[in-house]
Amino acid sequence: MLQKKKNAVLVDGVILNGPIMDSKAGEKFVEEACKIIMEEVIQKADDVTEKVCEWQAPETLKQILDLEMRDTGESHQKLLQLCRDVIQYSVKTSHPRFFNQLYAGIDYYSLVARFITEALNPSVYTYEVSPVFLLVEEAVIKKMIEFIGWEEGDGIFNPGGSVSNMYAMNLARYKFCPEIKEKGLSGLPRLVLFTSEECHYSMKKAASFLGIGTENVYFIKTDERGKMIPEELEKQVQRARKEVRGGEHEGERRRSVCRLCASWGGSALISRKHCRLLHGIHRADSVAWNPHKMLLAGIQCCALLVKDNSGLLKKCYSAKAAYLFQQDKFYDVSYDTGDKSIQCSRRPDAFKFWLMWKALGTTGLEERVNRALALARYLVEEIKKREGFQLLLEPEYANVCFWYIPPSLRRMEDGPEFWQKLHQVAPIIKERMMKKGSMMLGYQPHQGKVNFFRQVVISPHVSREDMDFLLDEIELLAKDL
Amino acid sequence: MLQKKKNAVLVDGVILNGPIMDSKAGEKFVEEACKIIMEEVIQKADDVTEKVCEWQAPETLKQILDLEMRDTGESHQKLLQLCRDVIQYSVKTSHPRFFNQLYAGIDYYSLVARFITEALNPSVYTYEVSPVFLLVEEAVIKKMIEFIGWEEGDGIFNPGGSVSNMYAMNLARYKFCPEIKEKGLSGLPRLVLFTSEECHYSMKKAASFLGIGTENVYFIKTDERGKMIPEELEKQVQRARKEVRGGEHEGERRRSVCRLCASWGGSALISRKHCRLLHGIHRADSVAWNPHKMLLAGIQCCALLVKDNSGLLKKCYSAKAAYLFQQDKFYDVSYDTGDKSIQCSRRPDAFKFWLMWKALGTTGLEERVNRALALARYLVEEIKKREGFQLLLEPEYANVCFWYIPPSLRRMEDGPEFWQKLHQVAPIIKERMMKKGSMMLGYQPHQGKVNFFRQVVISPHVSREDMDFLLDEIELLAKDL
Repeated sequence: MLQKKKNAVLVDGVILNGPIMDSKAGEKFVEEACKIIMEEVIQKADDVTEKVCEWQAPETLKQILDLEMRDTGESHQKLLQLCRDVIQYSVKTSHPRFFNQLYAGIDYYSLVARFITEALNPSVYTYEVSPVFLLVEEAVIKKMIEFIGWEEGDGIFNPGGSVSNMYAMNLARYKFCPEIKEKGLSGLPRLVLFTSEECHYSMKKAASFLGIGTENVYFIKTDERGKMIPEELEKQVQRARKEVRGGEHEGERRRSVCRLCASWGGSALISRKHCRLLHGIHRADSVAWNPHKMLLAGIQCCALLVKDNSGLLKKCYSAKAAYLFQQDKFYDVSYDTGDKSIQCSRRPDAFKFWLMWKALGTTGLEERVNRALALARYLVEEIKKREGFQLLLEPEYANVCFWYIPPSLRRMEDGPEFWQKLHQVAPIIKERMMKKGSMMLGYQPHQGKVNFFRQVVISPHVSREDMDFLLDEIELLAKDL
Repeated sequence: MLQKKKNAVLVDGVILNGPIMDSKAGEKFVEEACKIIMEEVIQKADDVTEKVCEWQAPETLKQILDLEMRDTGESHQKLLQLCRDVIQYSVKTSHPRFFNQLYAGIDYYSLVARFITEALNPSVYTYEVSPVFLLVEEAVIKKMIEFIGWEEGDGIFNPGGSVSNMYAMNLARYKFCPEIKEKGLSGLPRLVLFTSEECHYSMKKAASFLGIGTENVYFIKTDERGKMIPEELEKQVQRARKEVRGGEHEGERRRSVCRLCASWGGSALISRKHCRLLHGIHRADSVAWNPHKMLLAGIQCCALLVKDNSGLLKKCYSAKAAYLFQQDKFYDVSYDTGDKSIQCSRRPDAFKFWLMWKALGTTGLEERVNRALALARYLVEEIKKREGFQLLLEPEYANVCFWYIPPSLRRMEDGPEFWQKLHQVAPIIKERMMKKGSMMLGYQPHQGKVNFFRQVVISPHVSREDMDFLLDEIELLAKDL
């Protein structure tokens, strides 16, 4: 140490010899923390006797967690306790009774892939810094395109289905009005877009973000199953034509491009039994598909896939930054896909899907989809058998929407008062299940229908017993209502 | 087993009893893979005798990696070998001699936080599914706002500085023309935006994405240090006024909102010694700051911070999706921040910064910044001393731009031929260092300046010895040029 100090180089009061980090202590900390993660998260993932969540109100949780960042660091012991606390009070989304969202469960292979990428900390823009992950992304996109049924195509993984929808909307705009990239929308005739009234809220967000405006979104009426009615689309097109023509601009460019958001449903493509649910998907110009949902690839894993293979994605998004995408490199720079993206640094999300696919094979993925849909089917049949449960509609996929009518409402006459009272039931049951920590299940009102439960089956850790538990538990929690 | 089979429930040919996953085998796989990650990535992170990269051309690497996804899954043994291969052929961005990007190095605490969040797999939109991570994000944003020097503010973590820039640009637009959210830009007077000619390419990407158009971006001339010249801003404003007025629209709304992209530089705020570099930052209306860069929080960790505290972010971005953001919940729904975001599912990126900050304290973070800047200063002085090295300009921060003039060019007369030849030098050296795997360093041309190296110091594993190595290695690689 003395020797080292003798040769020390001091700049601005900082000794520059040797690194300042204690690697050994750091590695030990990682090892100890990994042990906690293994024991407290991974090994408990299939244990239904564990709580799904340990509910604390925000103000209480703030007091429990020591959130303040101070001038001085904490000891490893204190930090490991913090890690335990974070795990304890976080929702266990891998628990077999977490039915709250469109993701759930644990996949050990994708988890390993995610640990690898966190350790390697790559950014996927150029082949030189991210050789493996760029090739993997290319292979995964190619395979997904095959399942859609396109002969060729292109694509990019990006941070979420909402962002995929924005990408696609901008791409459609670019395809027919490439000049908007440079000129912008000002002074142009209104652009309008047509989407289902049952579409994800990201369509509205995208319309406002891209400068199109939410009022220029024409929502198409759907049938009782939530499917767009083709005749209603034609009606809206006629309406838009009148409204836009009524404006000051004469020119009208009517072009159609069809994009499909299959963020949740896309994974049915993997199943030979259920892919018919997406019959005709190959006719879409672009498809958003999130393997982090039904296929458990881990948040986030979202691809936007486009049928075009003429370089549209790159032409639309490129900014040709010379400092990153040099053209005088010693390798084929067509592998530097970073300029196809709105992001600069980008995570290697395709990799986790890839490793999982390698591990399970297409048949393993297919088995997951088939089982989730079979479990949903089982739940539907049980709901029909039980008193007090009422299905909203026959599901086609893995989400089951139903009401629970508690004992006190069962003899009540159908009418506004009944529905008003029923509306209050789901929030109460939800509060009770959260505070008990026995399961998590979402509720919502929708299109004039009062609050109902939306059950989602995804995880391969879920079994028939969990479906039975779900219904038993609702009855138990609501028996006094 | 027999008993179980007797009670088996079969739906659509799928047995629904018990889970289909072998948890024990899965856990064992995770354990074995973690051992590989520990040995091959984490423990080697500070080892300069390891290669930074093991270069393979795309076609060769495709053959080495078995990229094809098949119907049948692979054995654990094969998968573990795949993991090893992925690690082997990936660039070691945590290597002390990885100087290629604005991120580098390893932080053990943020890494642990990232392993925790991957295992928990949360999405940060509502308090009910993400209680800990929402509170952590709130605390981190509050602290970052303090360092900027605002009395209050708001913010959101999002996937990258480019996306932060888009968020901010849209927010500025909303602040002064809220009607654009609904009406869109069509038929409105042109919107123009002013930015430095040295700005990140994401500004152009954002202008086209948001429908403003890249031609409506007015680039302001900068001085020789790349700083915007205030008089030039005024000139561009005058120019824009003429050009926009020249159009068909009479109304002009001139409002100014200042946003600052401190994705890379923001971390200087943590250093009492260097925060003066960001003097006046509190006058900006919004700031983008990426702790995944200088502070090693791991890709991605990017905050957009806004001075406004009147709910602008929420008003601008909300779509009020009833299925996710129910208002009849049993807790204070103001904690459900998901509607402030363009994304639906969102990763808990604030958490890794938080755990690192808890571990190191502000002083530990400060020490990192100070040391990186001192090392850059050391490198600059060494460059000045050595024959053949030429600094482009005196750096103020941790990036050092320089040319290496190889022996054969040192006696050449200054002129077009000299610069043309020098332009070819950096790519050759880069190719050689990549193929040798000894270090990684970026090069680029810029504003009429031929290819030069851009050295970036970030990692606390970097020492003076690595700076000396860098210069020695360039000399060695280029001695015959």
